[in-house]
Amino acid sequence: MSKLRVDLQAASRMIAGAQRILFFMHVQPDGDSIGSTLGMIRALRQMGKEAIMVGADPIPPVFHFLPGWDEYCVPWQEVEGEWDLSCFLDCGDLERVGPALPAVRRGRTTLNVDHHATNTAFAEYNYLDFSAAAVGELAYRILREIGAPIDAGTALCLYTSLVTDTGGFRYDSTGPGTHRVAADLIELGARPYDVAQAVFETESLSRLALLSRALQTLQLDETGRVAWMVVTRKLLAEAGATDHDVEGVVNYARSVAGVEVGILFKETEDGGVRVNLRSRRTVDVGAIAQRFGGGGHARAAGCTLNVPMEDAVAQVMAAVKVVL
Amino acid sequence: MSKLRVDLQAASRMIAGAQRILFFMHVQPDGDSIGSTLGMIRALRQMGKEAIMVGADPIPPVFHFLPGWDEYCVPWQEVEGEWDLSCFLDCGDLERVGPALPAVRRGRTTLNVDHHATNTAFAEYNYLDFSAAAVGELAYRILREIGAPIDAGTALCLYTSLVTDTGGFRYDSTGPGTHRVAADLIELGARPYDVAQAVFETESLSRLALLSRALQTLQLDETGRVAWMVVTRKLLAEAGATDHDVEGVVNYARSVAGVEVGILFKETEDGGVRVNLRSRRTVDVGAIAQRFGGGGHARAAGCTLNVPMEDAVAQVMAAVKVVL
Repeated sequence: MSKLRVDLQAASRMIAGAQRILFFMHVQPDGDSIGSTLGMIRALRQMGKEAIMVGADPIPPVFHFLPGWDEYCVPWQEVEGEWDLSCFLDCGDLERVGPALPAVRRGRTTLNVDHHATNTAFAEYNYLDFSAAAVGELAYRILREIGAPIDAGTALCLYTSLVTDTGGFRYDSTGPGTHRVAADLIELGARPYDVAQAVFETESLSRLALLSRALQTLQLDETGRVAWMVVTRKLLAEAGATDHDVEGVVNYARSVAGVEVGILFKETEDGGVRVNLRSRRTVDVGAIAQRFGGGGHARAAGCTLNVPMEDAVAQVMAAVKVVL
Repeated sequence: MSKLRVDLQAASRMIAGAQRILFFMHVQPDGDSIGSTLGMIRALRQMGKEAIMVGADPIPPVFHFLPGWDEYCVPWQEVEGEWDLSCFLDCGDLERVGPALPAVRRGRTTLNVDHHATNTAFAEYNYLDFSAAAVGELAYRILREIGAPIDAGTALCLYTSLVTDTGGFRYDSTGPGTHRVAADLIELGARPYDVAQAVFETESLSRLALLSRALQTLQLDETGRVAWMVVTRKLLAEAGATDHDVEGVVNYARSVAGVEVGILFKETEDGGVRVNLRSRRTVDVGAIAQRFGGGGHARAAGCTLNVPMEDAVAQVMAAVKVVL
């Protein structure tokens, strides 16, 4: 299989020339995967094309405000017949398609549209732009290029992709291009407040109960540059919370004024400790996580230690102190 | 005093034609007042003009990452001599200048640059654009119009004005123009991550302690559409928190999935109750607050009741239920 890098125009011609297109989401799909795919499908359907989204995992409830999330989705096992194109949005490599992989072969050719610098250019044709903060930007460019209609629903989907993959235009990946596409999408009908309410300002009671209890465990080291929280199974049970509710709570540790590294230690079901690390500016927490067999980026990383909580805290804190 | 509405070009000519300019911040200055003023002064000084900022209140520490916050500020009592222009940014009326009012007369003429629809056009010349989400947008347009240099420091100040007055591009006031200016400012050197960290992701320990305790008081009414928290003086003392730390905590009540109205009841120092109300989409909490002698907007309002906590909760909840 030849692996060609193609530009916007060539990728757009492939989409324009196809009548039946399969779009693949990645496993555990996020706002960029879902928003860019839904937006693309909605616009292409309005052009008279046949397009469906295929993914191994369901769309999380937080994205059920997006039009088409239920209608466009087809379980990969039910994809039949021959399709003109299998298109991947926001998939860094083919493994990201997960169990849905067998359905990829239903497409006569493959097109990979992505912004991850680590993308393996795994498809026959690959439109990659590492400067884009979200694939929604690339999907928007393609739709513009082929003259697709972009109604308020499509704008909402694409705008959601931008918002979620930039943490609300907060990450440094947010470039001028991101904002200019956001401007266009608002003109086309996307409502910033609606998206922010749905995506950032909707919490479960169990998550708030967990947050309250986790904050009670907040501690600072003697330098004031490291803050950490400890979430035990007992604490989770008392809050009526699940492991899922813990996501993002580590950011509260990092948010303390003067703190460079925020850490959340969570007891796992089998008695180990999952460690989430966040840094503000200078410390490479990815490197720290790697020392414990984990991984991630400079500003966000994680690892799992199969030791009691006390030992996990001591070991990770020691490693952080060496770096500070 | 004639009160003229002027357009961008006329306002820009006034700024360009003045050599010595006084800029007035409003009392309790926010990110828009501070960011737009600092950005304007920095650029004008780089053009060789003399420009200072005058305000009745100090710049809050959260904005001390902005260049010039200490250097450009002059106490209003120390403003001397004759200035070409007294310029107001983000002041809806002249009263917003507060105690600094006497210094206004130091300017030979006055220019009012604002985006509030309620602006009273109080100056001799008034450049008002109600479609702008932040005065930073208008300041940017003026600087571009007069060909002022906009370096990374100026871009940072103006970008901060946009970010703070739109809640991070989340309010519906965020228009296409806001995003297009943000795009330009990032190209000119503003760093989204730095601003977000400073403005949105820096908390005091006392505030987090308060948040933890306030969340413990979170309750939902039987419909699940109203959520409220109760912050007593005892709770504040236990958290080591001040009244200032309570700001924004009410948003956690509104954030509960399914909730339309979030309320925070805070016992005041004199034994009354300050009530903060937020709504998500349909309820006009401004009207509810008005019934108790308070005020605000449809989505955010407040009032004070001089009754014991229990009665305040009962009265406000009854009023909310009527509306729901």
